[in-house]
Amino acid sequence: MYKRILVPVDGSSASNLGLKEAIKLAKGLKAKLRLIHVCDELIVDPNFGAGMYGGDMQKVLQESGRRVLEKAKASATKLGVKPETVMIETLGGHTSDLLAKEAKKWRADLIVIGTHGRRGVRRLVMGSDAESLVRESPVPVLLVRAKG
Amino acid sequence: MYKRILVPVDGSSASNLGLKEAIKLAKGLKAKLRLIHVCDELIVDPNFGAGMYGGDMQKVLQESGRRVLEKAKASATKLGVKPETVMIETLGGHTSDLLAKEAKKWRADLIVIGTHGRRGVRRLVMGSDAESLVRESPVPVLLVRAKG
Repeated sequence: MYKRILVPVDGSSASNLGLKEAIKLAKGLKAKLRLIHVCDELIVDPNFGAGMYGGDMQKVLQESGRRVLEKAKASATKLGVKPETVMIETLGGHTSDLLAKEAKKWRADLIVIGTHGRRGVRRLVMGSDAESLVRESPVPVLLVRAKG
Repeated sequence: MYKRILVPVDGSSASNLGLKEAIKLAKGLKAKLRLIHVCDELIVDPNFGAGMYGGDMQKVLQESGRRVLEKAKASATKLGVKPETVMIETLGGHTSDLLAKEAKKWRADLIVIGTHGRRGVRRLVMGSDAESLVRESPVPVLLVRAKG
């Protein structure tokens, strides 16, 4: 059974759905849970608009990422799961490539992601990378679709 | 935790990978496992070529489906899981629509599918419908990708 669950979080509603499922699984399976945020110039917590275009973009992304991870960690902790958190930066790479590599490095045995289930919105939420991630993931990917 | 796992089987190597994962999960979670085969004129067990173009195509598809289900059931039974089996026919509908409907009807809480992880091969294996199924599924979908 799954013992090391990796869940990318970006603060979107789709991502929160994946997070919720991952917490449920980690709890039920007594698995390790790792929350990962990819700093990507196209993925910014929608709730963190202030100052977004002022100052160093990289710093803004990191601050946004920290908040997303903190919030996600708090959700997990509240439900009795203590997750690890990790932040990585794309540095021009593809989010799905990086996630696949991180999954391998950490020896994840499952990746859980929320997806909006629509096409055409490229990389605006983590879920839109779902298809690429499924292609590249070294382990099974659990997709949780946002309704509507 | 998941208690009713639905897994579409079509005899392809991708589908077998999904089946294997579903059996593992059903065993570990003491969940019900239902194997479902969709009779589709474009999905025929590659190991069942004989007589394919002779006689009634529908009968050939049903016979192929029965063999696929029997084989899949035997794999599960061998590993200590007793699955239900179901065969449905597309009758011009889309495989992914039908699977989503069957999942709802049976009150599945997880669908497991193997996917070849390539694009362009439309409906030749169940996995190529993975994307549509994820869009339409009422429950989380676990995707297991065939290597290479």
